[in-house]
Formats: sequence, C-alpha cells, structure tokens
Amino acid sequence: MNRRMILYMPLQILKLEALMMLLPMGVAFFYHERSAWSFLYCAIGTLAFAFLGSAILHPAIKTIYAKEGFVIVALSWVLVSAVGALPFVISGEVPSYVDALFETVSGFTTTGASILRNVEALSHGLLFWRCFSNWLGGMGILTFFIAIGNIADGNIHIMRAEMPGPIVGKFVPRAKDTAKILYVIYIVFTVLEMILLLAGGMPAFEAITHSLATGGTGGFGVLNSGFADYSPYIQWVVTIFMLLFGVNFNIYFLMLIRKIRAVVSSSELWAYLGIFAGATAILCIDLRPIYENVSDLIRHSAFQVSSIMTTTGFATANFDKWPEMSKAVLLFLMMVGACAGSTGGGLKISRLLILAKAILREFKKMLHPRSVTVLRLEGKALDESVVGNTLIYFVIYCVLIGVIFLVVCLDRFNLETAISATVSCFNNIGPAFNAAGPAKNYAGFSDLSKLTLSAAMLLGRLEIFPLLLAVFPVTWIKK
Amino acid sequence: MNRRMILYMPLQILKLEALMMLLPMGVAFFYHERSAWSFLYCAIGTLAFAFLGSAILHPAIKTIYAKEGFVIVALSWVLVSAVGALPFVISGEVPSYVDALFETVSGFTTTGASILRNVEALSHGLLFWRCFSNWLGGMGILTFFIAIGNIADGNIHIMRAEMPGPIVGKFVPRAKDTAKILYVIYIVFTVLEMILLLAGGMPAFEAITHSLATGGTGGFGVLNSGFADYSPYIQWVVTIFMLLFGVNFNIYFLMLIRKIRAVVSSSELWAYLGIFAGATAILCIDLRPIYENVSDLIRHSAFQVSSIMTTTGFATANFDKWPEMSKAVLLFLMMVGACAGSTGGGLKISRLLILAKAILREFKKMLHPRSVTVLRLEGKALDESVVGNTLIYFVIYCVLIGVIFLVVCLDRFNLETAISATVSCFNNIGPAFNAAGPAKNYAGFSDLSKLTLSAAMLLGRLEIFPLLLAVFPVTWIKK
Repeated sequence: MNRRMILYMPLQILKLEALMMLLPMGVAFFYHERSAWSFLYCAIGTLAFAFLGSAILHPAIKTIYAKEGFVIVALSWVLVSAVGALPFVISGEVPSYVDALFETVSGFTTTGASILRNVEALSHGLLFWRCFSNWLGGMGILTFFIAIGNIADGNIHIMRAEMPGPIVGKFVPRAKDTAKILYVIYIVFTVLEMILLLAGGMPAFEAITHSLATGGTGGFGVLNSGFADYSPYIQWVVTIFMLLFGVNFNIYFLMLIRKIRAVVSSSELWAYLGIFAGATAILCIDLRPIYENVSDLIRHSAFQVSSIMTTTGFATANFDKWPEMSKAVLLFLMMVGACAGSTGGGLKISRLLILAKAILREFKKMLHPRSVTVLRLEGKALDESVVGNTLIYFVIYCVLIGVIFLVVCLDRFNLETAISATVSCFNNIGPAFNAAGPAKNYAGFSDLSKLTLSAAMLLGRLEIFPLLLAVFPVTWIKK
Repeated sequence: MNRRMILYMPLQILKLEALMMLLPMGVAFFYHERSAWSFLYCAIGTLAFAFLGSAILHPAIKTIYAKEGFVIVALSWVLVSAVGALPFVISGEVPSYVDALFETVSGFTTTGASILRNVEALSHGLLFWRCFSNWLGGMGILTFFIAIGNIADGNIHIMRAEMPGPIVGKFVPRAKDTAKILYVIYIVFTVLEMILLLAGGMPAFEAITHSLATGGTGGFGVLNSGFADYSPYIQWVVTIFMLLFGVNFNIYFLMLIRKIRAVVSSSELWAYLGIFAGATAILCIDLRPIYENVSDLIRHSAFQVSSIMTTTGFATANFDKWPEMSKAVLLFLMMVGACAGSTGGGLKISRLLILAKAILREFKKMLHPRSVTVLRLEGKALDESVVGNTLIYFVIYCVLIGVIFLVVCLDRFNLETAISATVSCFNNIGPAFNAAGPAKNYAGFSDLSKLTLSAAMLLGRLEIFPLLLAVFPVTWIKK
C-alpha cells in the first residue's frame, strides 16, 4: 500500500478544485456579487493547504495499483465535496454546513437533489458553481486531472475506479490520452448544446448553466419552475442532449475512428434506445387523460423518460402527480440508469445485459448441469470475474439501498417518500416522489438523512466499491 | 425428457388431494354444512379424472431427472391449486373462480392473503380446508406424496425442486425416508401446538385450524379479529411455534440423532434468532409511544416479528398504523424470510449468509485479484455452482418482484400498497400495508392483479426456478 500517494493524490485534486473555483468567482464578479469573495478565500485557503500538504508528503514512489486507485478516488471525492461546500457557507447563502455538503455532494455526484426551497434566491456565482460541479463530476474530476496533469504510474487504476460501468477499458494505449479524448468529446457536446439553447432564445446564463448540468446528467437548474416554462423547442433540445450524454462515450470514439459497424451492432446502445422508446410509449398511454394535446403528451413523456433514465433529473411537469403506473415506470428507470462509460448513473444498461445473460445461462445450466457457456458482450467474451463482480454488485446495490432506506425511515415521511428518495439519490437522479417530489426539495429531511443520502449519492456515483473498500479493514492490512 | 411422467405424476398428486378433501368434508358434515357435498363432488370428480388420465398415460419408464423434477413440481402445484379452488365455487361461498383460485393458491403456498371481507361468514368446512391447505403446502404436497406413496426413481429431484433453500440434502440415504422423517417432526410439532392452544382455553376448532395454519407458516385464520382478542398466553404460544416452524428442520433431525454440537454451531440458526431478537428490539423502541405497558410492547413486537419473519402473516395488531420505521423493518423481514428447509418463505437466512460471504470474498478479490477462497457454510465447503445459483436467484427475485409490482400498479392503488402487496405475496406472508393491510384484504384488487399475485405466490413458494423452467423453451427442446 502506497500510503503517501493515497494522501498526495487527493491534495493534487484539491489544487485543481481550487483553480476551478476561479470560474464561479469570475461569474460572481461579473454580476457584482459578494459571493465572489467567498470563492476567492476558499480557493486561496485550499491551495495553501494542498501545497503545504504536498510538500510534506511528496512520495518517492509514484506507482499505484488497483487498491490505491480505489482509496484515492474515495478520498478525493469526499475531500472535493467537503471543500466544495465551503463557498455556500462562507457566503452565508446556505448557513448550514450539512445543507451545503448535501448540495455539493449532490452536485459532484450529478444527482441534482437540492435543499434549496427557492433556487432563484441564490447568487449567480453559486448557481454557476452548482451546475459546474455537475459537469466536473459527470466525467469525473480525477479523470479530468489525468487528462491535464502529470500523474502517477497507474492512472488506469484511478480511471477504472472513477468511471462507471462493469468494464472500463482504454480507447488508446495511454490512460492520459483516453482521458483527453473523453473530455474533448464532452466539451464539444456541451458547447453544442449551449449554442442550440441560445438559438432557442434562452438567456446566456441559463444556457450555460443548463448545458453544464445536462452534460454531467446532473440536473441542477437555475429556475424554480425547472423546464416547465421553456418552449417545446428547448425542451426537445434538452431531451435529446440528455439522451446523448447517457450514451457510452465509447460509441462516439468509435464514430470518430469510423468504426460504424461496431456502433450499429452495439447491444448496449440498442437496449438503451429500446428502453427509452418503450418507457416513453408506456407513459404516453398512461398519461393520455392528463395531456389532451398529442405533441404535449409525447414531449412531456419523452422529456421525463430521458431525464430520469439518464439520471439527470430535470422536469417539465410535476410527475409526482402522475398516475401510479407512470411513477412506477420512472422508479424503474431510476435504477436502470444510462449506459456504462457515460456521465449518467444507475445500474447501467451493460450491467443489466450481463445480468440477463447470466440468468439465461443459469437456466440452461440447471437443465444440463454439465454445460459450459462463455458469456459475450459487444462481440467479446466476458471474463467470469466480470460476471461474478456484476452479480455481487447488484446484491450490494440492493442491500445498500435497503439500509439507507431504513435510516431515512427514521424521518417519518411515508414509505413512498423514503424509498423513492433513497433510490433517487443512490442512482444520482435528484427528484423523487411525495415529500421529495420535483416540486419539493430535501430541506425538510433531518441532518442524519441528509448525511446518509449524501453517502448514498457518493456510493452511487462511484459505484459502491471504492468507498466500501476504503473503509474495509482488509484494505489496510499489510501483507 | 420423460413426458409421460411429467403428466402422470401430477395426476397422482391430484388423487392425493382428492383424498385430502375428505377431511374438510368430514368437518362440514360434523357441522351439518352444505359445503360437505361440494367437497364430495369435487373429490369424486378429481379421482375419476386422475384415474382415467393415469390409465391412459401409464409410463413404461419411471426414471426422472432434475429437468423433469422442476416441471412435475410446477405442474402439480398449478393443478392442485386449480382443483383446490373448486369447493369454494361449487359451494357458492366464493362465487368468483378467480377469487377462489387466489384463496387456494394463497393457502397452498402458505401465503395467507385473502379475498374474504368477512372470514367468519365462511362455513367450517371451507375454513378448515383453507388452513389445511396451509399445512399441506408448508412441507410440500409432493414431499408428502413421496413420504407415503410409491413413486418414480428420482424422488430427490422432486424434493429438491419443492423444498425451499439453496441446498436441499437428504437426512438419510433414501429420499422417501427423509420425507417421512420431515413429516413426522411436522406432525408432532403441529399436535403439540394444538394441545398448548387447547390448554389456553382456545375452542377446539380454532385450536386445530390455527395450529395447521401456524405449522405451514401460512397464516390463514378463522376470526375477523385475527389474534388480537386472544390471551397473552395464546399469543406467546403462537409466537414461539411460528418461530419453531421457521427453523430448518435439519436442526430437529440433528437433535433427534443427538448431534447437539452441530445444532449449537449452526450459523443459520444463530442468524435467524439474532435477526428475530434485533428486529424485535427495534420495534420495541419504535413502538414505545403506542404501547405504554411493557409486556404488551414486547408481546406485540415479538409476535409481529415472528409472524412476518417466518412469513406466517398472523397479526395481533393493525401494524399498518405503526410508525414508518417499524413498517420498514417488517417490509425487510418479509424478504429475509425464515430458514431454508423450514415451512417459511422469503429469501431464506442461509441464502443471505451465502450472499454476505460472497460479497466479502469479492472485496478481497478486488484487493488481491489472484486470491482464491472457497466459501464455507455450516462447516462445509460450498460448491461454486451453489454460490452462483444463489446470486442469480437474488437477481431474478428482484426482477420478478419489479415486474409484478408494475402489473399491480395498473390498479392505481398507491405505490406503498402495490409494492408491499407484491413483496408480501411473493414471500408468502399475506398481509401488507395500506389497501392490503392486516385489517384489509385483497378483495378490491382487479382480476388481473389477483392472478398476477397468485403467480407471485407460486413463484415465491417454489423458489422461482421450477415455474420459470417449465415455461422456458429450452426445457422442451430435444437434444
């Protein structure tokens, strides 16, 4: 265990975060807001702390392995959240640190759950910081660092621990180059959305923040009305971009290198689009009594399915008031999630495909106990360790949702609120049902619930293992 | 595939069921009820049909394998339920066949969910039949047949498919003798409970029916008030017997052959008792504001935990009105279930132990990718195929609960009703929350929901695989 690197790396990430804070600071200065100073103080303090710590810890050996990768990612995310919450408190706009932490974790994990009763009361600087944290967390802040920074030997272990999905591979031999390609695609799509939103008449600040929040499939907005008051054009643009950011970025890379055949034969992509279309169709049938106009019906259904499935969490309507069938479908989509290797959360489509294949194989094995079958995904044979890990992942996922649900139940909201809030936070969606519905917020939850749900968001974003392994005693035992 | 045996065996089970109907017929004659005739007609008709069918189908080869075992069990249970529902309809006491089928499936699967708005209006004959079906289904009607009948080569495949738990072994070399031992223990405990209930002043009919329903951990009662109006003594007796029937019967066999050390070191037994004690403690804390008297507090908590965890479903109180924390704990216990090899349902403690061990092993594997560990349960090495099967079982279990929940959502009850009714039926408990709470019933559900929940009860009782494999196309393909 390279203990120095475990502490050294997160400090480098903090330096990056401090630099990133200069952006919202600029926004705040532009709008002549006092919150600018809180970003400045926080950035200076963080830089001082990180440089001092780095100087003391400077590790002789920079090599890391899987084990260190998990711990570094876990620690970095906790620290980044803890520091990222400070501007909210220092500016006095969110007086409670627990609230600020919830909001920041929600931002970086791309959840988009908020404790703000009136989001429009927040200064532009902090509104930008929230949406920017969605964007940074979407593709991964450590991945960003790998793309731009000089880092240890073993980058791939960090990327594996931070990137979502059952199998994290490299596009190109070097992890650093892979990270660069990912971020270039990410930036291009985000800018494209900004342009299309501006073209639709959205004010510049809203176009920028909403594009950042869409990019990370985060879902933080800047208006109390969410997307309800925007034009159908804007709602459709956002629907499509949420879907695009939920696609495995590998697909875009394959397009770039003209491997169109591999794109067209991607089972994950087809399953993703199929679930989107199927769920939208069910909602259209179920919501007919509510939306008489067919174009409204299709638009609201498609927007909400796209928003929930990609785990963004935007809303054009108060879906908590929708009939039970639609709500049940949305609850499912929360768990299904987007594609692996995207900025979306949830279980991920490719994981579900592996589970489905494993179930069918088990059926065959029970009928013919001696049969041996190798599972395949996207044309490649799956390693049995990946299949086993996916099965275990699903079990832990269910257990953790159960445990967190139990803690949230202490708040004495009804069971629907408790279970939907847990599922929504764990899968990084944001809004849930009833007391945590899209027209409500998480302000009414107890501090215990807010901290527990913050943990849920981190567990969901980092796909469980890094955080659990970081606190698993065996990790720290010397061999 | 021995197709003749697949049809022949269920017909033998129908003969047994017809004979079993003579018992409720006797009860009905004793109380001078008209329903006696409906049992007689039904028994005669079933016997005629079964003998005719057997004569036509008589198979030359009586050997069966795992594959046939699954299909025979699935088909037998469907047929036994379909026929068992007839006396309700013929007597006119439950006019709708769908309702009668729901009630019968609920009986044999030991669920105890009812469509009766007023159970006391039912004749004694049918009340007895309901509770007797709990008892027959508890240990397994095919297992009963194996214990008393002359049957094919390959009994163990049928017992494996019908008995709950991840590993079904034999106490003694012959499956027939194992089945006999199981039923002897079962009968002794049931009679013991009857005696203790009679000693507590419970009327004979109620003592008999309640003991049968406790034995199968079924939960059908004969009073509208459930167990609320009985004395604390009776409530405690039932609490303890529910717990006893939820223990792996292997434990009792080990006691019989004086292997006390194996009993004391059983991790499943300790986990079972530990969960019972822990859950009771949580309920006691949560329910303090409701029950001021400490003995009431402990008794109601222990009774309800025992009832739900063993998947019986009796109630001394309307737990739907309890605080959210208690309800959440009960919802969990519904899924946890009792021990493998007991008459209880749910996931089963031993399955959860295997899952927990598999998770810990995966953690170690992620830290040290080359490590190889063999999992052990009750001192024995677990076959990797059992571990894999248990993981897959959990995944299918979650998926099926999800799918059934979606269908039940069409009824537009709230989500809490839909999810709790699904979980309760699938795990063979009976009462759920809200519209399906212990003070309510399933009469208000649509026919589609009743049939879907009936399927859920069968899937839960037979532990998914037999029913799914019976409709899985590959099962029917000739090699």
